[in-house]
Amino acid sequence: MSSAACIFCKIIKGEIPSMKLFENDTVFAFLDIGPLSKGHSLVIPKYHGAKLADIPDDQLTDILPTLKKLITATGATDYNILQNNGTIAHQQVHHVHFHMIPKPNETEGLGINWPATEGDMGKLQALCDDIKSRI
Amino acid sequence: MSSAACIFCKIIKGEIPSMKLFENDTVFAFLDIGPLSKGHSLVIPKYHGAKLADIPDDQLTDILPTLKKLITATGATDYNILQNNGTIAHQQVHHVHFHMIPKPNETEGLGINWPATEGDMGKLQALCDDIKSRI
Repeated sequence: MSSAACIFCKIIKGEIPSMKLFENDTVFAFLDIGPLSKGHSLVIPKYHGAKLADIPDDQLTDILPTLKKLITATGATDYNILQNNGTIAHQQVHHVHFHMIPKPNETEGLGINWPATEGDMGKLQALCDDIKSRI
Repeated sequence: MSSAACIFCKIIKGEIPSMKLFENDTVFAFLDIGPLSKGHSLVIPKYHGAKLADIPDDQLTDILPTLKKLITATGATDYNILQNNGTIAHQQVHHVHFHMIPKPNETEGLGINWPATEGDMGKLQALCDDIKSRI
């Protein structure tokens, strides 16, 4: 399943060139051409879907093992794995993609803002019970 | 395989309480008690390893399907999946964990700084060839 209008589907088909690193039956990996750090690369499922919840489980099996291949091949020791879903969550191309972003120092790589809240244990327990009831 | 000193291994064993959402043979999921947004939760492999590259492929199979369960059960529509490796990359507990962080609005949830560089295509192609040769 692919989408005719999707730039990543075109990359998978070879209709748009890419810095391809690896592919198999279900995944495709390539360098990000606007890297946050050296070795910043992407792993995408070949199955087209905008968000993680749209991809069938059997199309996801090779994603994390492929990210591991990139980590090893780039020699990254510290790194972030990031997958954004929705424009407000910083997603720019609406085909699921996992970033592997080496973090060689404080300035290069992914910057994170972490606006943690102090959890209210009573409310968290109620939320926990609610979510659990839906799984 | 677990580590006696690891807080997440203790949570898996039930030696430390947690807001448990789900578990099976290979994964454990629970609410983050210092949430960035409502529904912020974690999925961890039961196999102890500090970084993604330390976890065997067969212990990773259920991670992404479990994240999908949490997305569906929390009703999140926009969200970030984040997995940090190394203290400099914002990792605080040194047992692999995947954050599922709902992004309901601009202020709550994960904040991202994206110091993109303009890729030098010649250098990127050389890097691509180098990485590919190691896969």
